[in-house]
Amino acid sequence: MKTLATRLTRSWNLAHPIVSAPMAFAAGGRLAAAVSGCGALGLIGGGYGDPAWLQQQFAAARGQAVGVGFITWSLRKSPSLLTDVLKHKPVAVMLSFGDPRPFVDEIRAAGAKLICQCQDLAHVMDAVDVGADVVVAQGAEAGGHGALRGTFTFVPEAADYLAAHAPDTLLLAAGGIADGRGLAAALMLGADGVLVGTRLWATSEALVAARHHEAIVDTDGDGTLRTRVADIARQLQWPSQFTARIRRNAFTDRWHGREDELEKNVAIEGPRYRQAFADGDPDHTGVWFGEAAGLIHSIEPAAAIVERIVAQAAACLESRARA
Amino acid sequence: MKTLATRLTRSWNLAHPIVSAPMAFAAGGRLAAAVSGCGALGLIGGGYGDPAWLQQQFAAARGQAVGVGFITWSLRKSPSLLTDVLKHKPVAVMLSFGDPRPFVDEIRAAGAKLICQCQDLAHVMDAVDVGADVVVAQGAEAGGHGALRGTFTFVPEAADYLAAHAPDTLLLAAGGIADGRGLAAALMLGADGVLVGTRLWATSEALVAARHHEAIVDTDGDGTLRTRVADIARQLQWPSQFTARIRRNAFTDRWHGREDELEKNVAIEGPRYRQAFADGDPDHTGVWFGEAAGLIHSIEPAAAIVERIVAQAAACLESRARA
Repeated sequence: MKTLATRLTRSWNLAHPIVSAPMAFAAGGRLAAAVSGCGALGLIGGGYGDPAWLQQQFAAARGQAVGVGFITWSLRKSPSLLTDVLKHKPVAVMLSFGDPRPFVDEIRAAGAKLICQCQDLAHVMDAVDVGADVVVAQGAEAGGHGALRGTFTFVPEAADYLAAHAPDTLLLAAGGIADGRGLAAALMLGADGVLVGTRLWATSEALVAARHHEAIVDTDGDGTLRTRVADIARQLQWPSQFTARIRRNAFTDRWHGREDELEKNVAIEGPRYRQAFADGDPDHTGVWFGEAAGLIHSIEPAAAIVERIVAQAAACLESRARA
Repeated sequence: MKTLATRLTRSWNLAHPIVSAPMAFAAGGRLAAAVSGCGALGLIGGGYGDPAWLQQQFAAARGQAVGVGFITWSLRKSPSLLTDVLKHKPVAVMLSFGDPRPFVDEIRAAGAKLICQCQDLAHVMDAVDVGADVVVAQGAEAGGHGALRGTFTFVPEAADYLAAHAPDTLLLAAGGIADGRGLAAALMLGADGVLVGTRLWATSEALVAARHHEAIVDTDGDGTLRTRVADIARQLQWPSQFTARIRRNAFTDRWHGREDELEKNVAIEGPRYRQAFADGDPDHTGVWFGEAAGLIHSIEPAAAIVERIVAQAAACLESRARA
């Protein structure tokens, strides 16, 4: 098996410089365990905080060393979720979308590593300020929630900031990394590894409806957009800085650009959205993947994906060095 | 001098796999000639079509082999501009933002190479259809006009499309490439070279006001946005697919999100915008640079920038191969 050593693999004792994104609903214990089981690090998606679901997912990880990620602004509404989860001794806790400060001490005290996902340079400064072990620089290409900076400039700018202010803090690139070319490019831009969402959403272990999986195989990278309509339909109070990248479909065609109208009709449209999601309908609900869709042509086991990403990245780097 | 060989350097007989973006107003003959003079390829910015200015800029290139770029939808309004420019025997003509078809035959007949800049996969399909010699995959990180796809996913997806449908067509990455890390990453993603705008805008040869240059040095990558307000103020009828990335400043703070209001006040605000631009005011007009601003800390001669990008890229690729 091909491996690729970086500061991340050395200091976290991993075979592969890859962490799976803690995608709400999709990243359960089976996916996280499959990713960790092949030598990368899997994260369970803490999502909006369902204690019973989280309990099940840690059970599904069957003792494999995994981490967990939370939506920070949502976690503030039910902080006991963190306390519960830390009992499972996660390797790392990733916080994203909000001020990490209220949770840092508890995470440290439990011996878990702190990963702060950042969407702009101001977030990186905050992450350094709280002493994050890992900064994730997430570009707008990413599926699901995020903001506006592109991966291509944000990663090297974050690398420069860390080099100057916190040289021991590790940096992961996120947003658009779906194959070995992306991993190799992220390393060139100064990252120590990558956080992979969309590509691992498209795996047999992800908790994703079959027709949503069919949709990603059929969609190219032009077929997604950043929008608020899924959050409006679900009546989730996301901070205005963050939108969600989802598939363009009948739902987004109907409502994107007509957000006020959707807001007014949420009593009808909200339950419709949720029912369509529960039914695995790919047209009338949010289908949660990013621009990397255009690089994804099959649903496969996570371990096969991780190993192929690493082998392809190593081959890209070696062939270029010989050119 | 360090060089980096790619399909682009070999087939176009260049020392460096770098092309300078034909930035309207900023990319005159001096910049294009400086870029070509050090072994890359410089393009003069055809902009909105001022024949006298273009004549001057070709004169300023002093016989150095350069190319030229046009805003395609604007060129359709004064196609004789292309005929005039082809008399200067440009190495290449780049078309961006519109259907290239009306101009392809004339460009070919003049013996110039055809570069099509693309903002999404549908544009790449068009470029292949017209037989472009080079496709530029431009991500939303780019300064000035562009669209929504991110460089990080768009480049490998374009590479896959070209590999399947037009394997001899060369691919350049654009949007966010400002140093050797960016060039190395672009090569990993499958590009044969890069188109560099913002980093070459910040050079002593670019036709940019001194205070605009000071502004880019002071701005980080969070300090730009994509918006229509500059085009509304200038009463330019850009197709709705394209917005412009410019610096966040007093002008964008005032009008971004209030486009209808600006439209109504354009009789006053239009001349204000143009006057501020002419005065080199960095606050009350469009200041035309991209997210790469956060990677730029000095104004230097173009040749020094090009040579440093290549040397740094080669070093990144070599050090990774040894890791």
